[in-house]
Amino acid sequence: MFISFEGIDGSGKSTQARLLAETLRAGGREVVLTREPGGSPGAEEIRRLVLEGDPDRWSAETEILLFTAARRDHMERTILPALTAGKVVITDRFADSTRMYQGLSRGDLRAIVDQLHALMIGREPDLTFVIDMDPAKGLARAKGRGGSEERFEDFGEGLQARMRAGFLALAREFPGRCRVIDGDRPPAAVAAEIAAIAQKSLAWTPAR
Amino acid sequence: MFISFEGIDGSGKSTQARLLAETLRAGGREVVLTREPGGSPGAEEIRRLVLEGDPDRWSAETEILLFTAARRDHMERTILPALTAGKVVITDRFADSTRMYQGLSRGDLRAIVDQLHALMIGREPDLTFVIDMDPAKGLARAKGRGGSEERFEDFGEGLQARMRAGFLALAREFPGRCRVIDGDRPPAAVAAEIAAIAQKSLAWTPAR
Repeated sequence: MFISFEGIDGSGKSTQARLLAETLRAGGREVVLTREPGGSPGAEEIRRLVLEGDPDRWSAETEILLFTAARRDHMERTILPALTAGKVVITDRFADSTRMYQGLSRGDLRAIVDQLHALMIGREPDLTFVIDMDPAKGLARAKGRGGSEERFEDFGEGLQARMRAGFLALAREFPGRCRVIDGDRPPAAVAAEIAAIAQKSLAWTPAR
Repeated sequence: MFISFEGIDGSGKSTQARLLAETLRAGGREVVLTREPGGSPGAEEIRRLVLEGDPDRWSAETEILLFTAARRDHMERTILPALTAGKVVITDRFADSTRMYQGLSRGDLRAIVDQLHALMIGREPDLTFVIDMDPAKGLARAKGRGGSEERFEDFGEGLQARMRAGFLALAREFPGRCRVIDGDRPPAAVAAEIAAIAQKSLAWTPAR
């Protein structure tokens, strides 16, 4: 079973991904917890290439190619071997983040992201948790963390609001796998709802 | 005018690209001489990522994505600005090398290379010189250079023979832009033939 977490910066998705991994492990599942961009040694190198340095060093198109290369490596080296071994894979961000961020920056890029995904990745998560959060609260949390290398966080509250709308639109576009979760509650309450949904889906997937 | 040089390692294409640049400059043309993989600061960084380290560190598919990202950057930052400014661009390798090397390693990869090229690059050279060379002679010359970072050279004479056939097949596939040049002659003789062909094509392109 392949599970992704998506949402704006500061929505709590990384915390929730970790809490779900702990809950499933406590229940006897083998879990691989990973993240994007990155998640395999090669993909982490590509991540550094994309996220470090001058924000204008890559065009949007080159950046999409680099993210797709990183995702391909992540799939081949981390995700697919774990799924084949019967493990649960939980990733903090996957292709929906690329769809949303790139599509938001220029409308015509979404089609490029989708064509590259169809050609080189092909697979979607079985279950995607979209953690929904008020943009002002999310931004405050993201800034409070400090030292983030995610330069998208520099763009302010207006962009955060558009990103929230973008993730909610993606959840409507892929209703079969996406569950929108209200992230503006105590983390334990959010985690309990997520665990219940994941365990219901996993009931159909035998543990090894 | 956008000119590429292709051919097996040791065929003399880099020398010939340089000699053509010198000849055209002597005739008053502004020329940008470049190479792939690489040719722009970002693309050179991606080149290092692809060519350094364990040969198995990237799958063929990830490698194609990285080469396409490098080519996109090379196009945006080096090739297109020079063409727009009325300069002649001469590149030592371009997309034909990716088509040939990847297609040779696994037949199904050629289609992926072509689809990525159509989606993300789109443009072909106006003129491609395919420098043809006996594989044994080419390999001896490539090895004589020593210290090459091009790990494809490690694969031996059998592969060199298949690569030669691959480049000749590409020249037949794109007869409109490809000229096969016999590289097994003194470099000055090869250069004279190439210069004559290039200048004939350039006669239709006004110098600035």
